[in-house]
Amino acid sequence: MSNQVSGITTTSMTVTMTTGAHMLRLIEELFPICRSITGNGVRETLARIQHEIPLRIEEVPSGTQVFDWTVPLEWNIRDAYIKDASGNRVVDFRASNLHVVSYSVPVRRRMTLSELLPHLHSLPDRPDWIPYRTTYYQENWGFCLSHRQLESMKDGEYEVMIDSTLEPGHLTYAELCIPGASREEIIVSTHVCHPSLCNDNLSGIAVATALAQRTASSKRHFTYRFIFIPGTIGAITWLAHNEAATSRIRHGLVLSGVGDRSPLSYKKSRRGNTEIDRGMRCVLRDSGREFREIEFSPYGYDERQFCSPGFNLAVGRLSRATHGQFPEYHTSADNLEFITAESLAEAADTCLAVFDLLESNRTYVNLKPKCEPQLGKRGLYSAMGGKADAGQREMAMLWTLNLSDGTHSLLDIAERSGLKFEAIERAAKLLAEHALLLEADSSSEVC
Amino acid sequence: MSNQVSGITTTSMTVTMTTGAHMLRLIEELFPICRSITGNGVRETLARIQHEIPLRIEEVPSGTQVFDWTVPLEWNIRDAYIKDASGNRVVDFRASNLHVVSYSVPVRRRMTLSELLPHLHSLPDRPDWIPYRTTYYQENWGFCLSHRQLESMKDGEYEVMIDSTLEPGHLTYAELCIPGASREEIIVSTHVCHPSLCNDNLSGIAVATALAQRTASSKRHFTYRFIFIPGTIGAITWLAHNEAATSRIRHGLVLSGVGDRSPLSYKKSRRGNTEIDRGMRCVLRDSGREFREIEFSPYGYDERQFCSPGFNLAVGRLSRATHGQFPEYHTSADNLEFITAESLAEAADTCLAVFDLLESNRTYVNLKPKCEPQLGKRGLYSAMGGKADAGQREMAMLWTLNLSDGTHSLLDIAERSGLKFEAIERAAKLLAEHALLLEADSSSEVC
Amino acid sequence: MSNQVSGITTTSMTVTMTTGAHMLRLIEELFPICRSITGNGVRETLARIQHEIPLRIEEVPSGTQVFDWTVPLEWNIRDAYIKDASGNRVVDFRASNLHVVSYSVPVRRRMTLSELLPHLHSLPDRPDWIPYRTTYYQENWGFCLSHRQLESMKDGEYEVMIDSTLEPGHLTYAELCIPGASREEIIVSTHVCHPSLCNDNLSGIAVATALAQRTASSKRHFTYRFIFIPGTIGAITWLAHNEAATSRIRHGLVLSGVGDRSPLSYKKSRRGNTEIDRGMRCVLRDSGREFREIEFSPYGYDERQFCSPGFNLAVGRLSRATHGQFPEYHTSADNLEFITAESLAEAADTCLAVFDLLESNRTYVNLKPKCEPQLGKRGLYSAMGGKADAGQREMAMLWTLNLSDGTHSLLDIAERSGLKFEAIERAAKLLAEHALLLEADSSSEVC
Repeated sequence: MSNQVSGITTTSMTVTMTTGAHMLRLIEELFPICRSITGNGVRETLARIQHEIPLRIEEVPSGTQVFDWTVPLEWNIRDAYIKDASGNRVVDFRASNLHVVSYSVPVRRRMTLSELLPHLHSLPDRPDWIPYRTTYYQENWGFCLSHRQLESMKDGEYEVMIDSTLEPGHLTYAELCIPGASREEIIVSTHVCHPSLCNDNLSGIAVATALAQRTASSKRHFTYRFIFIPGTIGAITWLAHNEAATSRIRHGLVLSGVGDRSPLSYKKSRRGNTEIDRGMRCVLRDSGREFREIEFSPYGYDERQFCSPGFNLAVGRLSRATHGQFPEYHTSADNLEFITAESLAEAADTCLAVFDLLESNRTYVNLKPKCEPQLGKRGLYSAMGGKADAGQREMAMLWTLNLSDGTHSLLDIAERSGLKFEAIERAAKLLAEHALLLEADSSSEVC
Repeated sequence: MSNQVSGITTTSMTVTMTTGAHMLRLIEELFPICRSITGNGVRETLARIQHEIPLRIEEVPSGTQVFDWTVPLEWNIRDAYIKDASGNRVVDFRASNLHVVSYSVPVRRRMTLSELLPHLHSLPDRPDWIPYRTTYYQENWGFCLSHRQLESMKDGEYEVMIDSTLEPGHLTYAELCIPGASREEIIVSTHVCHPSLCNDNLSGIAVATALAQRTASSKRHFTYRFIFIPGTIGAITWLAHNEAATSRIRHGLVLSGVGDRSPLSYKKSRRGNTEIDRGMRCVLRDSGREFREIEFSPYGYDERQFCSPGFNLAVGRLSRATHGQFPEYHTSADNLEFITAESLAEAADTCLAVFDLLESNRTYVNLKPKCEPQLGKRGLYSAMGGKADAGQREMAMLWTLNLSDGTHSLLDIAERSGLKFEAIERAAKLLAEHALLLEADSSSEVC
Repeated sequence: MSNQVSGITTTSMTVTMTTGAHMLRLIEELFPICRSITGNGVRETLARIQHEIPLRIEEVPSGTQVFDWTVPLEWNIRDAYIKDASGNRVVDFRASNLHVVSYSVPVRRRMTLSELLPHLHSLPDRPDWIPYRTTYYQENWGFCLSHRQLESMKDGEYEVMIDSTLEPGHLTYAELCIPGASREEIIVSTHVCHPSLCNDNLSGIAVATALAQRTASSKRHFTYRFIFIPGTIGAITWLAHNEAATSRIRHGLVLSGVGDRSPLSYKKSRRGNTEIDRGMRCVLRDSGREFREIEFSPYGYDERQFCSPGFNLAVGRLSRATHGQFPEYHTSADNLEFITAESLAEAADTCLAVFDLLESNRTYVNLKPKCEPQLGKRGLYSAMGGKADAGQREMAMLWTLNLSDGTHSLLDIAERSGLKFEAIERAAKLLAEHALLLEADSSSEVC
């Protein structure tokens, strides 16, 4: 696999991606690659990620029926330009892969400006930015350029060239399954079909990669499945090819646009009150940082497919600024300066905190349910009485004892008490060590 | 049937009442008639409405037992006055039928002012207005007059005359049944017992009449029943005589006070979350105009009877200003200037929109429930990708597909999506035409 | 039983405690007594209350196992002081029993100030107040003193003396059962273990005593049980010794801190929506006075035990200022000036109003459920029609008729209508007298 456009040489990371700087470095390497929903850009991207995590690559032939859709022809591009009468490349794919409408059919033609204009896309309101446009399902071609470029184009004849191929080939995706004690799964899905755009979605790719590394190295109840797929058609293909296995999915997250400077936002699943929805709200609340919670809607990223009525999975989406609601969305301004290492790190940490919550969200039974047990004689309670308040540690124990009647999970207790999940979890462990709590029967399936 | 008081000549309208001006013209004709809960004023009113719609008139004899009530004696009045010592009519029924307390027994007597005073009703706070008072269920008589008139009355002897009759007769009501494909009914009820008051309730009468005309000319699933009844005793009589048939009532509206300049207000049924309640909220929301939603209470108009616990029907009430909470209520200021053609037209349009909603509030099943169907290949989705948002039309399709799992009606989808009901309905029809949706089995009874 | 500390002579009240002044007088008498969770101070307190109500005293031996706890050794104290080198009592138990940490073991020793300091407790932020501290479950001793006193203590040797005993004895508590028609119980629990602190909890003791007197003299459906117990260990002991009987508890209140000047606050039971929770909210709302409603938490007073998951009783707590959240809490500033007769009286009246509500919260069936019954012919409705509103009395009748379908209690009706419970109750009685309502079958157990 080669990358004629960027000419970069990828270098394998040698350490686990524990910081935002690591993720940013991966993004910098992936940025120049011209990705689309099929083609070598996706393959090159996934090959680079394989340096970090042992992805399994799947190639699905063009023409394969996936539910109501058909895997399209494979698109690849080597070069493209618009040359003026003097032979100067006034629009040049080598400068930015956004310049060509994705899935443009090959063109080699001389045209006047007025003939060319219907094929040119710009943003009058943002005259310096190049828009990102696609024409996946309708044979067409076009160029995207800054409005300033467009305005500087004089009447006259232009040479238009797109050296692309649209031929039977494959749709490429990848996944990594990290088995846990149980066959029940947590899935993380991220789209890999966007060209040189950082937040959308190299940010999601980098965070998912970091999560896979860090999850692999920790003790797990759940099996974790990381899915790197082209948007929409990739998610549909994955679901079509893994339909039976979806019954094992307990929780899931779509990652997209997690690198910008906006607060984290969580879009709830279609069901709206699943454990991942409530767990994410709890983790974001516990963080003490600003966050937004967004109701489900059937528009956005691949949560659309996971939450279609025939699947209706407990899959939410973690993002920051909402697609379509920030000016840089789908433009050349979604570049390396638009994202930060801190934002990437925070997004990864948030996901890990949710995984921890889901892993440890047990339900316990208080073994001394009649009145409070005497915490003091076990060294769990302050000896001197009369003071104005119990500490947070003592409050967490009291709440956990009070609500552990076999019907309240630790998440339920954290929600009702308003205390942090980790404080409740610590209290539960301590109380269990002192034989005051017993885990209620868990019916989760183990491999 | 004659109208000694007003002496008006009614003229039949020849067109369907599609505008507020039509309704206002009907109101102008009905305004002078002296209506009460029984008597010729009601008959004359209903006869006039028969020029517009083929009402069936019912006459229920005085003394008929209707649940806990008894149909009262029939009351009629020809003339009434208070003459001063000089023989001048200082209070004159011919000037306004509000001057006589409704159901006043006959009187012909000379009295001093102090003897007369307990029979005189005025509004000190609104010295120019004549109040409206009734004494249906207690034999009594009285005059209503402006406070200014009252204050100008000097000591001395007055001649008091009420030429009324209170005798065995009938209670008169009318209804019109417009059959639909199903025997399930939507009822519209409006009270016809108030004398020269416009908003309360010639407005309800005019809007109900217009609705009957327009409903008759449209395709209908439901059977529509329009009921023109005296308040309280009329509703009780109707329910007593149609008790078995109430089981077919699916939705209902009481219309009263819909002509003034206040925003529309909807009072919910006792059950509070029925389809008519939710549908009316959706229609009012979709209108983009200010509106009020009022919780049920057992006070007001005939919703009191329809929502009594033994019936508990899904009947709400459409009004504007709330009875008793605007100064013109039950006074001579509730006159032709108090109402507008626009308000009448908007009320009628709102009801028609609710009928449309109830008629078309189907539940569908998505035939391609696994992932989204490919709308683009059916010409239902924009071909050029990458833009910032889907249009409202596309959002309506996505929502309708996503929630059409056999458990969500179109109204459910409109509510959850925040989109207009008609956008959802259009999307559903379009998707059904493309074999993407199928109507879920409907169990509604058909004639 | 003697009271070496206070030397007061108690005098029996001869009247029922119907005013706050009566309650305040009882508090003044009880104030000097040195109470703790065991010992003669509790006995003396209960003996004084026996002058008012026929309490049955229970003595539970030290060492008795009660659930996870053990009844502790009995603690008594005769005298305590810290003398300076000149023999002056610089800290003197005779001045305030707060000066000694409750459950201090006997001490008689000469110490330097620096040796003594770890045993001294003061409040630097409130330099004139003496804190209240305890060491029930860890053998220790200490003195509490104002920070000003502490700062005035010079280096040098002090004579430290605590003439206490900590020996096998008993835990003392008391209860009074006032039988009603039914064996179903309302319990009122109040803690009696705090020394010279007025709001916490002589206020609760005084109000409970007044309630017992006044309940005994009224007609009762429920059996009322008043429980005077040491906090925590007393409640646990009571529950352990009355475990089977708790199944008869329908409603309960913990009384604590009801004498200060803050608005009444009600802390809901763990279940959160029981009849006592809703009834108390209704009574407080109906009062028209400011009040607070607090969600359950497993911290506070003996509601902790009654609402432990193994009991989960419908027991809430009536208080004013929240423990730990007002500066006077557990200090010498919680004295006779901190409480008022008005506050005590209002707390008692509020409890009595809740008892009345619970006693009379019947469910009725409307015997004329189809349409409204004709109230006018029964003299229940204003004869003159047309006025702007029905009075509150008529609204209460209409709501009660409308909702009395066998599924709504009078409390349900008061809540939904927004009318006062007593208005609904009066309406129900009146309607029942007129054979319009019949009480729905009650399944409550009768002795």
